Amino acid sequence: MYSKKKPISELKDGERVEDIFVVKIKKSIRPYAKGFMFSLILSDASGRSVEYVYWGEKDESKVKDIHQAIKEDDVVLVNGYFRTFNDKPGISTNPPDSIKVLHKGEYDSGEFIKPAKRPAEEMVGELRGYISSIKNAQVRGILERVFIEDSKFLDTFKTHPGAIEIHHNWAGGLLQHTLEVARYCELSKGMFPGLDRDIMIAGALLHDIGKVHEIGVTTRIKGTLKGQLKGHIPMGFRMLANVMDELGTDEKIADKLLHIVLSHHGSNEFGSPKEPMFSEAIAVYYADEMSSKLSSFVEFVSEEKSRTEDDFMYSRAQKRNIYLR
Amino acid sequence: MYSKKKPISELKDGERVEDIFVVKIKKSIRPYAKGFMFSLILSDASGRSVEYVYWGEKDESKVKDIHQAIKEDDVVLVNGYFRTFNDKPGISTNPPDSIKVLHKGEYDSGEFIKPAKRPAEEMVGELRGYISSIKNAQVRGILERVFIEDSKFLDTFKTHPGAIEIHHNWAGGLLQHTLEVARYCELSKGMFPGLDRDIMIAGALLHDIGKVHEIGVTTRIKGTLKGQLKGHIPMGFRMLANVMDELGTDEKIADKLLHIVLSHHGSNEFGSPKEPMFSEAIAVYYADEMSSKLSSFVEFVSEEKSRTEDDFMYSRAQKRNIYLR
Amino acid sequence: MYSKKKPISELKDGERVEDIFVVKIKKSIRPYAKGFMFSLILSDASGRSVEYVYWGEKDESKVKDIHQAIKEDDVVLVNGYFRTFNDKPGISTNPPDSIKVLHKGEYDSGEFIKPAKRPAEEMVGELRGYISSIKNAQVRGILERVFIEDSKFLDTFKTHPGAIEIHHNWAGGLLQHTLEVARYCELSKGMFPGLDRDIMIAGALLHDIGKVHEIGVTTRIKGTLKGQLKGHIPMGFRMLANVMDELGTDEKIADKLLHIVLSHHGSNEFGSPKEPMFSEAIAVYYADEMSSKLSSFVEFVSEEKSRTEDDFMYSRAQKRNIYLR
Amino acid sequence: MYSKKKPISELKDGERVEDIFVVKIKKSIRPYAKGFMFSLILSDASGRSVEYVYWGEKDESKVKDIHQAIKEDDVVLVNGYFRTFNDKPGISTNPPDSIKVLHKGEYDSGEFIKPAKRPAEEMVGELRGYISSIKNAQVRGILERVFIEDSKFLDTFKTHPGAIEIHHNWAGGLLQHTLEVARYCELSKGMFPGLDRDIMIAGALLHDIGKVHEIGVTTRIKGTLKGQLKGHIPMGFRMLANVMDELGTDEKIADKLLHIVLSHHGSNEFGSPKEPMFSEAIAVYYADEMSSKLSSFVEFVSEEKSRTEDDFMYSRAQKRNIYLR
Amino acid sequence: MYSKKKPISELKDGERVEDIFVVKIKKSIRPYAKGFMFSLILSDASGRSVEYVYWGEKDESKVKDIHQAIKEDDVVLVNGYFRTFNDKPGISTNPPDSIKVLHKGEYDSGEFIKPAKRPAEEMVGELRGYISSIKNAQVRGILERVFIEDSKFLDTFKTHPGAIEIHHNWAGGLLQHTLEVARYCELSKGMFPGLDRDIMIAGALLHDIGKVHEIGVTTRIKGTLKGQLKGHIPMGFRMLANVMDELGTDEKIADKLLHIVLSHHGSNEFGSPKEPMFSEAIAVYYADEMSSKLSSFVEFVSEEKSRTEDDFMYSRAQKRNIYLR
Amino acid sequence: MYSKKKPISELKDGERVEDIFVVKIKKSIRPYAKGFMFSLILSDASGRSVEYVYWGEKDESKVKDIHQAIKEDDVVLVNGYFRTFNDKPGISTNPPDSIKVLHKGEYDSGEFIKPAKRPAEEMVGELRGYISSIKNAQVRGILERVFIEDSKFLDTFKTHPGAIEIHHNWAGGLLQHTLEVARYCELSKGMFPGLDRDIMIAGALLHDIGKVHEIGVTTRIKGTLKGQLKGHIPMGFRMLANVMDELGTDEKIADKLLHIVLSHHGSNEFGSPKEPMFSEAIAVYYADEMSSKLSSFVEFVSEEKSRTEDDFMYSRAQKRNIYLR
Repeated sequence: MYSKKKPISELKDGERVEDIFVVKIKKSIRPYAKGFMFSLILSDASGRSVEYVYWGEKDESKVKDIHQAIKEDDVVLVNGYFRTFNDKPGISTNPPDSIKVLHKGEYDSGEFIKPAKRPAEEMVGELRGYISSIKNAQVRGILERVFIEDSKFLDTFKTHPGAIEIHHNWAGGLLQHTLEVARYCELSKGMFPGLDRDIMIAGALLHDIGKVHEIGVTTRIKGTLKGQLKGHIPMGFRMLANVMDELGTDEKIADKLLHIVLSHHGSNEFGSPKEPMFSEAIAVYYADEMSSKLSSFVEFVSEEKSRTEDDFMYSRAQKRNIYLR
Repeated sequence: MYSKKKPISELKDGERVEDIFVVKIKKSIRPYAKGFMFSLILSDASGRSVEYVYWGEKDESKVKDIHQAIKEDDVVLVNGYFRTFNDKPGISTNPPDSIKVLHKGEYDSGEFIKPAKRPAEEMVGELRGYISSIKNAQVRGILERVFIEDSKFLDTFKTHPGAIEIHHNWAGGLLQHTLEVARYCELSKGMFPGLDRDIMIAGALLHDIGKVHEIGVTTRIKGTLKGQLKGHIPMGFRMLANVMDELGTDEKIADKLLHIVLSHHGSNEFGSPKEPMFSEAIAVYYADEMSSKLSSFVEFVSEEKSRTEDDFMYSRAQKRNIYLR
Repeated sequence: MYSKKKPISELKDGERVEDIFVVKIKKSIRPYAKGFMFSLILSDASGRSVEYVYWGEKDESKVKDIHQAIKEDDVVLVNGYFRTFNDKPGISTNPPDSIKVLHKGEYDSGEFIKPAKRPAEEMVGELRGYISSIKNAQVRGILERVFIEDSKFLDTFKTHPGAIEIHHNWAGGLLQHTLEVARYCELSKGMFPGLDRDIMIAGALLHDIGKVHEIGVTTRIKGTLKGQLKGHIPMGFRMLANVMDELGTDEKIADKLLHIVLSHHGSNEFGSPKEPMFSEAIAVYYADEMSSKLSSFVEFVSEEKSRTEDDFMYSRAQKRNIYLR
Repeated sequence: MYSKKKPISELKDGERVEDIFVVKIKKSIRPYAKGFMFSLILSDASGRSVEYVYWGEKDESKVKDIHQAIKEDDVVLVNGYFRTFNDKPGISTNPPDSIKVLHKGEYDSGEFIKPAKRPAEEMVGELRGYISSIKNAQVRGILERVFIEDSKFLDTFKTHPGAIEIHHNWAGGLLQHTLEVARYCELSKGMFPGLDRDIMIAGALLHDIGKVHEIGVTTRIKGTLKGQLKGHIPMGFRMLANVMDELGTDEKIADKLLHIVLSHHGSNEFGSPKEPMFSEAIAVYYADEMSSKLSSFVEFVSEEKSRTEDDFMYSRAQKRNIYLR
Repeated sequence: MYSKKKPISELKDGERVEDIFVVKIKKSIRPYAKGFMFSLILSDASGRSVEYVYWGEKDESKVKDIHQAIKEDDVVLVNGYFRTFNDKPGISTNPPDSIKVLHKGEYDSGEFIKPAKRPAEEMVGELRGYISSIKNAQVRGILERVFIEDSKFLDTFKTHPGAIEIHHNWAGGLLQHTLEVARYCELSKGMFPGLDRDIMIAGALLHDIGKVHEIGVTTRIKGTLKGQLKGHIPMGFRMLANVMDELGTDEKIADKLLHIVLSHHGSNEFGSPKEPMFSEAIAVYYADEMSSKLSSFVEFVSEEKSRTEDDFMYSRAQKRNIYLR
Repeated sequence: MYSKKKPISELKDGERVEDIFVVKIKKSIRPYAKGFMFSLILSDASGRSVEYVYWGEKDESKVKDIHQAIKEDDVVLVNGYFRTFNDKPGISTNPPDSIKVLHKGEYDSGEFIKPAKRPAEEMVGELRGYISSIKNAQVRGILERVFIEDSKFLDTFKTHPGAIEIHHNWAGGLLQHTLEVARYCELSKGMFPGLDRDIMIAGALLHDIGKVHEIGVTTRIKGTLKGQLKGHIPMGFRMLANVMDELGTDEKIADKLLHIVLSHHGSNEFGSPKEPMFSEAIAVYYADEMSSKLSSFVEFVSEEKSRTEDDFMYSRAQKRNIYLR
């Protein structure tokens, strides 16, 4: 059993590395002055990447054997020296035995996902609190069926990331984001008493349940095949519709909750087949925006400001320069 | 039992009218020189509207009784004279007995929807032909379950309109449109043999099944409450997903057909939560566009060119002038 | 001294009216069968309008005298009967003495603006609480200078509307909105501890100060001339910049607060000359959106659902149908 | 006379290459450890590219002589070994005599364009069939003048590509695309009998005639200078207008056909100076879209699915991931 | 021979009118208390409209005879009184003999188009001056052929309006606008000496020649049928291309001038099939914008500021409020 | 004291270089076969860049010392040979003494900014001419206060660049651009006499004064920190508003000039918080566009046409191909 020693983000120039990484991209073999080489892009839970270069020997078939044994998403144990070449971090190695593919069981795949920022059980407690605060028995019943009675779903939901990258992309990020959305909605209820708290809070808790099928977690967080073809909004819509059908939920309640799921991206342009048509749907939409955009800004600034001395850094996600100071 | 004598579109200035109409909009009572009056917007299967004005007597309570007895979507029998006032068609009446609300059973509500352009059974025959031509047994099985085994669904589907207005807005318009989409796809297969005919034709037949829940038909074609909140794309997606789940369809086939349903509006902007990601989905999208846009142009020109002598008429649906000659 | 008896929104068909109103629009004189007439669009604090028609005598010059004495924004005392004509509310009158222009002093102009939803002093207390909670002395000093030391500004600010229409368009709406923005920011700080609370809360409190110059309040809420030419963002920017210059605020603090004012509409498209470039600016932007959009949805639904029995009502502000049930 | 032995797309790692290619891009000379080198980007009819590197000797002037003799679009005979370096295909050579520029006459330039997918004469037969099916003598006369009487035009038109890249970019692609558009229109006529078949089919056949001047074919398919400055829509418009002027075509027919040429991109945004204003113009527009988009999807999938084992491949033309399985 | 006495814009309430007008819109007959009536929308060179109402007798056939004798674009002699009803200007008449359709010859149709702002011959002189200043003989030859040798074209061009409404919509407006564009270009040459003056000035003079076919002038300025289907850009492109073909103009000069014509709307979105690709094309594009936008602002302000006492007036053309003071 | 010998744009392959440059980007150290190396991107007033590579010795600490002594924006004296590698210009050097950081005083930083295209004093003369031509004493007073009485401001303004790149990016470019805008406005006044010349010319002269704070000039032209957070439009707005407050300018004049500053980018989308609402504001907006776009086209063509033999070059600023011949 191997465990991660030091995240890529903390490696220093010239440092000796003997640690485990995930293979993100595998490149093909090419000849060089002294034989055959290939390179891999390795990553770990810090979200950073490093280029690993294997400078192999003259015998092409031997290098090919090593190369073919490695697949994307594999966890590998690597020996070498860390160096920054042309502003890009890299690890150079000298064979033999500089790289080894680990088997499942030889490592803890949880080590390769960013760790949770809040304890899962604390978050589940908060979730249960919201559920038990719902006054309408039908609405509460739906939440209990989805989140409590289906313990397999909850096990996934409470440790799932909220996105592949940019925001809440860590274990438990999905539940953490869900609770942030609920909290903004709770505050809105205090200021706008006309809001239907039961529908709004239930909508907040349910809006992203389809993400457990859209995002897959192995040694990396990746979009699933079905997620790319169908999206979390239609999948979550169907999950919820089927549960409510089974429970015999009143059509009016059912249609409102389903509308919140469908409209939570706020506009067609951003993938919602319906735009928010009532106050609780607007509340969930803006709460979702606020949680995800603030998470992405705060994470970006916190990561970038230690990497650079510049005042600004361009964010491709936000399509603008972000001020870091 | 009353039946419609002459469509609004064929009434001539000064003609005496004693015919049945649907109440589209009901306006409130107001006083005039000789008593109290109210007006109604009436329509019929021709798609045109006419303003009916009831010039009532001094006794406000009598006029109120008549006014209150009339509800939107009611069918009324009307006596009066047809006249064009200020370019708007109208019917003027003199009480008493100039208007009477009919009960269900006194009229055939089918008379108020534009009649089918192709016989339902001929279209069902063509639909069955497409289904039996599908080679993949699973795909064929899905179509048989949706369209053949569920005879109640087929009864609705074969007489449903394809839209509320603009295109295929007549009894059977939905199936007629569905078959047009299938025909364009069939032709595409002839020119692009690499297309998977089974997936494409099945996608064409299934793409709009959610419309039976989005559009409601009484004496008028109207959007349903649930249709406005959920839309035909998510509803059709769920209908199909549940059928395929029951049948145990292979995930790859299921995801392709569901993707076609989700992406058939071509882009997020037009309400598709996913944009077409493979050739068969693109084929269904463009076939859908071609059928609906050609229908709307051809209908618009055919209706407007007899109404006006101008060369051009502005179409709000197309946001441009249409050339009529 | 006259005072308002009943809002337009509560008048019933046929009811006798002897009450005061604001003149919103004045139309020109025209002849009719029995003499000369003119009409006015009157409004009151309920936000509704009613058309007043003065059916005058044959002597044109007498009617002209009455007509010329009335100006837009005047408060008038009116006698007549309320009636709905063609779905539009109206008041018919018979001269003489059916209309009288009141002088300042004969009415309380505050009666013509929607009343505050929270007591001004309670809101000022909350504002002071936020200010005293700021830890950075410079930032706190700026807020004290703007909101506390300049008591004339505070007198205006605490009773000013937040917008001309759609959201927070009542006395005190501007401060109420400002505090809602601050509350969302406060909650965000709890979930995203990396945020700089002082900058964010100060930005929230200051973001809309320019509105006291953009919006004018007489007997009606209207855009000012200078507001239409310059906008509240540049005017608020300058007000704040001048205060900070006087106080000798550090450039870094000053530029952050000014950036929040400039960027609080979120994008160029919506009138911000700069887009939010750091986390606290994003927090204020979304909090502003959430407060204003929720206010507009909640107000719209609450007003419309008592006016109509339809399930949906089209909102021009949101460019979509809103579900009212 | 040299002829092409094997397309780039079928070369395997390490294989010896002695074959002819087109020079797409020529890079400048640079020194390296043992002398002077330069590289070329070579392509062939498979549409793939390969980087050729000439590792020359110490004597700079000799390498310069070789370098200067090569021009873009030249056909060269190359000796070397094929290898994939860093995921990019390359050919390494050792001088002398590893590269030779061929003269016209030493190769068949048709070998460097993707070959026709349908025989030219079969397509011409189909074109003639459409022309002779036109009932209106004037319309038929225009088509005969353009496509039959001007045999030089037809010789070009029947072997011209339909686009530089992405769709129908092979010899005869222009005529193949033209016929696909006509076939979709023919099918539309069957379903929408109100369409004017003569105008629509003629419009379909003529819509892209300007492409013979916009696209140039040498050893490569490239945009012409005049094509970049004027575009195929205005050029085709003028070609057709001049022919019809000569023939004395009725203005109504002429204006309809010209409008179809101008509007066939469907909207201003995509380069049409007029948007389709009648049914036949809409029919040609969607038929054009369907033919070109399906061609581009089907070609993309067929090429990419053999190159990669990934489920999705990003298409820059479609700005999205395409599903390949 | 009748001639216009006073423009609509100068008529005062209650004034007696006996003058000639153009029929812009003709409405249908309707009954009223004392017989049958119809109304016309009349206009004149001031660009204003007035509603004329004919209150006819009981005998419907007599009123129909009068109604049928009037056609859109006719010039009519009208007797009546001018009055503003409901903020709209109107003329009321009492038959008989209150309206008479004039024959060609009884009026000067030039009186119904806004008069030229600069004398035609002065403008032609300026145009000739630009032409003779062109140094390149080929370019000068093109301009001479278009503007000087074809005197019929020049007769039209020098008196044609530049647009149907909004800017330069008066006799000679097209040439006036053309010269304004040339003047901005001339000034640009002074500041950017790298510009090719001959190409730029020629492009400026030629850019809108297609408008003589797009805009028709009878008693009113209207879009022509062919103009709506083809547009002035393609028509002007072809006119110029044919002239240059005849003259055997060098391809480089020809393509530059044609590109300027095609690109002078600046972007696809505004109807240019090509966007400006060289400096002279950009110069003509901005000069065209500047001339047309300034004309429309200046005219709007000058007309509206005398009509209203408001500070702002909404302009539909500019989609914003315009400040008038 | 060192001075620049030859601009990068004129260096030839193989030429010996001993000249001064500005450090634009500094890259990190990396090992190579014979020791440690690093590279710098150097630039000069020609606007071109060249990669300088320092091939250092085995002793890492010595190379680090040299590397650490160099900072971005430093001026360095470099020895080496100029060569184009892979189409990119580069300078290779052999230590020791191949690079030396210069102190202020050892070079003239003005040499690293593109030189003025017009003499500063000639431009100031033209500026004074415009100011003295203003008839309204208040308006003239504002201009005198801003441009003449504040000689420190004028010293900066007359030598400042107008933008960081693309247009007027040279010493004095800001004043040159300002005068171009004024000249277009002057010409507009001649053609549209209704324009208020004083307001328009003053708006033209003042529109970009905020740029002296938005753009910083050291050895390079760069955006300032405050400029990125606040922008030249709000900063210029405040500068002008404060001056006019001091002078007690009439509100009407003040608001018009401030509106011109705010609206000179023409639309919200391009960063103006207000869109032009009167004729003089439109005039300044288009004049600004014309000056900046023509400058960018003319400069692009003049620079690129000597660099390449291609007919077209892609311009990222214009997002299109530009024709160079």
